[in-house]
Amino acid sequence: MAKNGVLASQARDFPRWYQDVLAKAELADNGPVRGTMVIRPYGYAIWERMQAELDERIKAAGVSNAYFPLFIPQSFLEREAEHVEGFSPELAVVTHGGGKQLEEPVVVRPTSETIINFFFAKWIQSHRDLPMLLNQWCNVVRWEMRPRLFLRTTEFLWQEGHTAHATESDARDFSLRILHEVYEDFMVKVLAIPVLTGRKTERERFPGATTTWTCEAMMRDGKALQMGTSHELGQNFSKVFDITYLDGSGASNHVWQTSWGSSTRLMGALVMAHGDDAGLRLPPCVAPVQVVVILVRDGDGAGEVAQRLVSELTDAGVRAELDARVETSFGRRVVDWELKGVPLRIEVGPRELQEQKVVLSRRDSGAKSPVPLSGLAQRVGEELRAAQSALLEQATEFRDSHTVEVEGLDDAERAARDGFAELPARMIEGGGEAQLNQSGVSVRCLVTAGPGSSKRSSADEGELSAVVSRAY
Amino acid sequence: MAKNGVLASQARDFPRWYQDVLAKAELADNGPVRGTMVIRPYGYAIWERMQAELDERIKAAGVSNAYFPLFIPQSFLEREAEHVEGFSPELAVVTHGGGKQLEEPVVVRPTSETIINFFFAKWIQSHRDLPMLLNQWCNVVRWEMRPRLFLRTTEFLWQEGHTAHATESDARDFSLRILHEVYEDFMVKVLAIPVLTGRKTERERFPGATTTWTCEAMMRDGKALQMGTSHELGQNFSKVFDITYLDGSGASNHVWQTSWGSSTRLMGALVMAHGDDAGLRLPPCVAPVQVVVILVRDGDGAGEVAQRLVSELTDAGVRAELDARVETSFGRRVVDWELKGVPLRIEVGPRELQEQKVVLSRRDSGAKSPVPLSGLAQRVGEELRAAQSALLEQATEFRDSHTVEVEGLDDAERAARDGFAELPARMIEGGGEAQLNQSGVSVRCLVTAGPGSSKRSSADEGELSAVVSRAY
Repeated sequence: MAKNGVLASQARDFPRWYQDVLAKAELADNGPVRGTMVIRPYGYAIWERMQAELDERIKAAGVSNAYFPLFIPQSFLEREAEHVEGFSPELAVVTHGGGKQLEEPVVVRPTSETIINFFFAKWIQSHRDLPMLLNQWCNVVRWEMRPRLFLRTTEFLWQEGHTAHATESDARDFSLRILHEVYEDFMVKVLAIPVLTGRKTERERFPGATTTWTCEAMMRDGKALQMGTSHELGQNFSKVFDITYLDGSGASNHVWQTSWGSSTRLMGALVMAHGDDAGLRLPPCVAPVQVVVILVRDGDGAGEVAQRLVSELTDAGVRAELDARVETSFGRRVVDWELKGVPLRIEVGPRELQEQKVVLSRRDSGAKSPVPLSGLAQRVGEELRAAQSALLEQATEFRDSHTVEVEGLDDAERAARDGFAELPARMIEGGGEAQLNQSGVSVRCLVTAGPGSSKRSSADEGELSAVVSRAY
Repeated sequence: MAKNGVLASQARDFPRWYQDVLAKAELADNGPVRGTMVIRPYGYAIWERMQAELDERIKAAGVSNAYFPLFIPQSFLEREAEHVEGFSPELAVVTHGGGKQLEEPVVVRPTSETIINFFFAKWIQSHRDLPMLLNQWCNVVRWEMRPRLFLRTTEFLWQEGHTAHATESDARDFSLRILHEVYEDFMVKVLAIPVLTGRKTERERFPGATTTWTCEAMMRDGKALQMGTSHELGQNFSKVFDITYLDGSGASNHVWQTSWGSSTRLMGALVMAHGDDAGLRLPPCVAPVQVVVILVRDGDGAGEVAQRLVSELTDAGVRAELDARVETSFGRRVVDWELKGVPLRIEVGPRELQEQKVVLSRRDSGAKSPVPLSGLAQRVGEELRAAQSALLEQATEFRDSHTVEVEGLDDAERAARDGFAELPARMIEGGGEAQLNQSGVSVRCLVTAGPGSSKRSSADEGELSAVVSRAY
């Protein structure tokens, strides 16, 4: 892999590396209002692929998209006590509209439970209206004191799902279905990021929820990133917004609810779970450009061959781009494409063509090999699948090798300097969790004990472990 | 067509009919903050199809999507004199964030010229960076005193394109390319709505533009709806934001720019251009459900046949849905599907099946015909194409029969009670346009004289006509 020196090294200064890579790969920029963010075209193209993949899974779960207003009456927020307490410090408030002071100030949505449940109360009458399963893609605002691009921004983009069910167990099943079939499946298969799925402690729970389920991943500095959450809301909101339905026997009941969200934070996770000192490493599933065909030097028909390869790959459904900027040095161009994390590079030059070959380079491993021109499209498909798998394997191996089982709080604190610590859940009860928090370590989630368990988020609790770490 | 009586009639009370159809077809609802809107799942599913079709055309024009912040420093708006004058009365202003009063209030974007051009100034250095072609899908806020769902709402969803070019003619060509290849093509081919394309007068121009091009359609009450606009901004913004590039000779020049937008107003246009007294009539291209298979009555295997038909149609790429609610009367279900504007209805019952037939009904014409089961998928494809064409033909015929050529302002005023009037452009000069405005008639666009001209928006002006009417 070319050493470009344009980025800080991860080992020396991970936060600086992160800033550098966002700027140099042209993913995002700071907006003029503190905490706001511009998502640049290359970053947005990745986000569009994420949206498409998530949206497909959300719809497959039977959910419909809709859109609710940005502006919420301040009084709505105040109806659910924990909810308003959780969000008040982060609100942006509009006091003037159309040149006049407003009679009731409106808040810019930090999340939409209140306004959506106001409408659920109108729309839900009978058990035949249930389950009601809605989702919206939108922007939300939470005033951020210590902003970091993608990770904590005053405005961010996300999807938020909101559902109403006839029974508590229907709601629980659905929140877990979203956790696994939408979030975990997407994160593992598309983003190539392994996640722990488990329950949040009361202290880390969403304000207004009865249970919060989470997907937690490890970044390459050993810190955790919460990538998506799915909440059971019980009847907390249905009681304050009076959302009732008539059951088959004609009795009136409050609905049971869920809400769940994932955001442009996923972009930060993608960068920090896979990136290396040369820049991004994008999983082929979300890479806007999966293969770049670099014309090393023109002559002897190399230009035509490069162009033809791009057409062949495009026809085969591969997102391929031609780099024919022969006036720029080959080395500089390679550095650029590595920065941008393009999974495969194909180098075409007169010398290689004499042997009817091109050079194929994998971004994930740096491996280079000469490959015959014939059958290249098929080979490219195989290499892309291999690159996707390799990134998941590397990230899994990294996480597992930075996770230790411990028995006490002091060991957990020590282990959390480098990664995750897993300890018996009873250790964090009493003052245990608060003690960890004081040293910058938080409980990421409670999982069924035993590493590698396949049902780590099971609602069936049994013996639990707490996974703790530093976190974003 | 079933007379359902659940809607006001268009002839008697068109505004009431519009409100009724939005509510009964479950397209949209008013939000709790005055002027805001909820787009319900059925309405949003139509909007998603519109977005996909527009987005494909925007990308085909070489434009990349990006995302810029919702919040803009108030001072940015003030830089371009006409722009701030145009938008000031409509701004929503955030004065408090994170529990504190802000040092500089921020405005919620009414449009994003200012903030995007602030970044263009950073990103554009050389002629090699041009053209820079960006678009964003987002929400914007313009405080609305007389809100109407989809047509005028305080918050609406839209796409806004922003581009920078090396020369004035590049910018003009691009603004016209968007007008025709993106907007007009989409409106005519997808929405089945014929549009006049032409130039706005100075009075109707976008604040900050040098030229505004527009697509204007006629609704079924004879009023005009502006469906999308494409602006040449000249160097108005590049001068105040200092967006310059070095040309090949090393000289510094200000860029020439365009911006262009289309919004959830298109939903209002779709409703009012095609709807009738029974409800919506959706063009198949944007219909979330293209074909509903109604099980009239079960028995003799009718249920299985209906289900199999839906599978066959789905496999053939048709958006088909089964209505097996036999406990609800057939008539009531037909009324529902007509309200929702589903283009084709297939009625399956034991009686028809005895003859190996089903009944096929077209929503656009109300025509019903018995059709053999064999080869049904192919027939459905043909009928959908025919329905799409028929709606465009009907809307074109309606518009043309409600457009008259006149020679003077009084005749124009009179003609505008029922539709469009076309008069020589010189008539609206001097005080002509103001006189029309006083009687509620506005100049929709200036077009090349001669009805049916194929180049009505040509930048080559020649002899011009003014099209005037009442408008939304």
